[in-house]
Amino acid sequence: MQSPSSDKTEQELGTTLRPKFGADGLITAVAVDDATGDILMLAHMDQTALEETLRTGEAHYYSRSRKSLWRKGETSGQLQHIQQILIDCDQDAVVLRVLVGGDGGACHTGARSCFFRAVTPTGGLARVD
Amino acid sequence: MQSPSSDKTEQELGTTLRPKFGADGLITAVAVDDATGDILMLAHMDQTALEETLRTGEAHYYSRSRKSLWRKGETSGQLQHIQQILIDCDQDAVVLRVLVGGDGGACHTGARSCFFRAVTPTGGLARVD
Repeated sequence: MQSPSSDKTEQELGTTLRPKFGADGLITAVAVDDATGDILMLAHMDQTALEETLRTGEAHYYSRSRKSLWRKGETSGQLQHIQQILIDCDQDAVVLRVLVGGDGGACHTGARSCFFRAVTPTGGLARVD
Repeated sequence: MQSPSSDKTEQELGTTLRPKFGADGLITAVAVDDATGDILMLAHMDQTALEETLRTGEAHYYSRSRKSLWRKGETSGQLQHIQQILIDCDQDAVVLRVLVGGDGGACHTGARSCFFRAVTPTGGLARVD
C-alpha cells in the first residue's frame, strides 16, 4: 500500500493501491451481502483497518465513536468474510462483498441491513425489511 | 425534514426523517443501479442536495471539490432517476436506487461504475469491469 500519488491518472486508472485517506485519516467502506447483493452497512476504515481486512480476510473498520479498531462481529458473531474488495476511481471508498457469519445480519438494531427504512415522497420513513 | 433528535431510539427506529449531517454538513450517499444492483458511485449530500433529490426525483449531490450543488448528469446526460431512497439506522447515510440516463454510466473515467477495480490479495489493483 503506497501513499496517495500526485499523479491523478495513476490514482484513477492504475494498478497500485494508493488509498486516499481523508483529513480524518479515513476512507468510506460499504459492505454488500455477496449472496443477495443487498447493501448491509456503511462504515469507515483507517489504514490499520484496511490492512487488517486484507491480512485476515475479515472486515475490520475504524469505530469513530470508540476511536479504535473494530473487528466487525467480534462480539455478535456477525463476522464479515471478504469475498471481494472493490475500490473507486479516486481511491477514497471501498465496497466489501462479504458473507456474513452468525445470524447473517449487520445492524445493531436487529435489522439485517442498516438500510431498513425507505424515505417516502413526503419525507417520512417507512420500514422496508 | 427535522433536525437530528437527541432521542436515539427515534433516530434509529422511528418514522421521521432526521438526517444526521456531519460536522462538514454532509451525509454519505451510495448510488446503486436499480436494474442490476451494481454499486455505481459514492458521493455526499448536504441538506440542499437531499431536498433537491426528494423534490425532483433526480440525484443531487454536494461537490466537495467545487463546493456547490451538483445535479448528477447535468452535463454528461448520466442523470440518476430515483427509484427508492433508503436511509441507515443512524441516518447519516443513504442508498439511492436509480435508473441512469445517457449511456448508463456514472464514472468520469468512462467506466460504468466508479468501483471498476478489485483489490488483489497482494494489495494491487485489477480491473474487473
